[in-house]
Amino acid sequence: MSQLKNDLLLRTLRGEKTERTPVWMMRQAGRYLPDYMKLKEKYSFFERCQTPELATEITIQPVEQVGVDAAIIFSDILVVPQAMGLEVEMIEGKGPLLPHPIKNQKDLQRLCLPDVEASLGYVFDALRLTKKTLDGRVPLIGFAGAPWTLLCYMVQGKGSKTFDEAKAFCYTQPETAHRLLQMITDTTIAYLKGQAKAGADVVQIFDSWGGLLGPDDFEELSLRYIRQIVTALKDEVLTIIFAKGAWSSLEGMAATGAHGLGIDWCIRPQMARQLAGPNVTLQGNFDPAKLMSPIPVIEREVNAMMDAFKGTRHIANLGHGILPEVPVDHARAFVNAVKNF
Amino acid sequence: MSQLKNDLLLRTLRGEKTERTPVWMMRQAGRYLPDYMKLKEKYSFFERCQTPELATEITIQPVEQVGVDAAIIFSDILVVPQAMGLEVEMIEGKGPLLPHPIKNQKDLQRLCLPDVEASLGYVFDALRLTKKTLDGRVPLIGFAGAPWTLLCYMVQGKGSKTFDEAKAFCYTQPETAHRLLQMITDTTIAYLKGQAKAGADVVQIFDSWGGLLGPDDFEELSLRYIRQIVTALKDEVLTIIFAKGAWSSLEGMAATGAHGLGIDWCIRPQMARQLAGPNVTLQGNFDPAKLMSPIPVIEREVNAMMDAFKGTRHIANLGHGILPEVPVDHARAFVNAVKNF
Repeated sequence: MSQLKNDLLLRTLRGEKTERTPVWMMRQAGRYLPDYMKLKEKYSFFERCQTPELATEITIQPVEQVGVDAAIIFSDILVVPQAMGLEVEMIEGKGPLLPHPIKNQKDLQRLCLPDVEASLGYVFDALRLTKKTLDGRVPLIGFAGAPWTLLCYMVQGKGSKTFDEAKAFCYTQPETAHRLLQMITDTTIAYLKGQAKAGADVVQIFDSWGGLLGPDDFEELSLRYIRQIVTALKDEVLTIIFAKGAWSSLEGMAATGAHGLGIDWCIRPQMARQLAGPNVTLQGNFDPAKLMSPIPVIEREVNAMMDAFKGTRHIANLGHGILPEVPVDHARAFVNAVKNF
Repeated sequence: MSQLKNDLLLRTLRGEKTERTPVWMMRQAGRYLPDYMKLKEKYSFFERCQTPELATEITIQPVEQVGVDAAIIFSDILVVPQAMGLEVEMIEGKGPLLPHPIKNQKDLQRLCLPDVEASLGYVFDALRLTKKTLDGRVPLIGFAGAPWTLLCYMVQGKGSKTFDEAKAFCYTQPETAHRLLQMITDTTIAYLKGQAKAGADVVQIFDSWGGLLGPDDFEELSLRYIRQIVTALKDEVLTIIFAKGAWSSLEGMAATGAHGLGIDWCIRPQMARQLAGPNVTLQGNFDPAKLMSPIPVIEREVNAMMDAFKGTRHIANLGHGILPEVPVDHARAFVNAVKNF
């Protein structure tokens, strides 16, 4: 492996002082990029994920076209339920559909603890090819969904604002829920270890629906499993937890020993720092919808964000994924404003 | 008007000591009640809203069947955009649809500042008839949507997880956005004054999408208009603000002088009290999905919630609307657990 030419992200996650703040964007390899859209028209979602050459090309596009300080492998959190034996479809314009969701203990028999090399080896291949193609330009981030967020989809069967069915499943069948969460956790640990071995410098755990749970339920249904994952990985790879909306558990997330915590735009950076304590890097927290603003407004707002984080361990990012409608030069203005701060 | 036999809600909102905590549930007049479903099968949504006899019957059902300490008038926040001249449809199983949403300054010409007696008099009639039929059993709550939440629907044209179009509208056309917010505010003040005159003892302002905004945007796009409404009303009627998810602005909301603030289950009561200060009643914050749990679990969780609020001004409620799937005896168990605490 070549020496990294830009290791700002890694040094920031380790708590070292850096010459400037690193920047990347969640969902940066995505629909706002015209070159991504061309590939999207030609290949299905799973063809793009499962063909290492396509995944690599998509992963590297924002590094070359927007100038971010890290690449994040093109994939999806639902490859894990798929590897565990659940059918997953991606419906254009509607999102994921799992036609045979988990509803009770008997349904768990349809799931397996997969051999990740056999079932998710295509992700490892994509990481290896991306790592080689990046040739040390920037670090490579791998990722997985948090067990709670994956349970949401595996039980509800599709996206939802509130995932009430998934929550009701946990409240009425707690033993089955915990068995399922443990199966997902065990699979995820093997999967993320494989990602680290294949070249991921950092792994991020996405708990997109962590914010639907109250603080006690977040501890019980989400954080205790994330903690297992972080503990299993922290000597092998740098880890970031992004539990959207779960601000009230920042202290508990910091106590896992994760190197970074993502925060969204609904919490002030000062408050997040107060809750998380000094020994973790914070990542965020620009409102993705604000990238629709005129460029001078984006620049002003980025400066305000950077000011609010100033002097603490910080990776500049959005507070959620970039929107498909964002013009590429607005994304570039965001990245450049961070770099020029 | 008869003297109120149960004025726990009003005394709690005024900060007086009461013999026990009052309890009601958001969306308590709704689909979890079989008697409501019977009326829903026979009459369209707007027939139910606009026929005072139907609205009254629906409003009183949970008082008689579940034993709540307040009635909330059966209506919808979108009657205000409708009165302002926008077409609003309720699509069964899908939610609201506004087929001609506001996209630019020119579209504002399609809106008016309505004579609320003429266009929303049916709500006032329903309040008067409900008040009379309640005959002093419990207080009557009126309500309106917050200007920001109404703008979300008026611009996006339908429900959304993130209301990105509505946010982009505000970020790219701020002057038009503020003109629209002011028109909604002026209409809402007249509307809520009319509700108070027609017999509402309390009015609640629902900012269902306040939590999509960062703290500065919440101040700019939501709270400054809510403040106008509370200021205009506070000598005429008791006021509650419920801005779901906007926990980081609890201090600012308390400073409006509102009598009560709703909170959801994602914030601990102690933290909410610390942010809101001592001079306002807190309302909430049971996770609605938890009403799917077995009754002994509901009782245990209600006790935990009551303990967490103990000794402070508190109205027991859910942190969001009751779900249609909740069995009626679970709703009753919630209410009784509060009463028996």
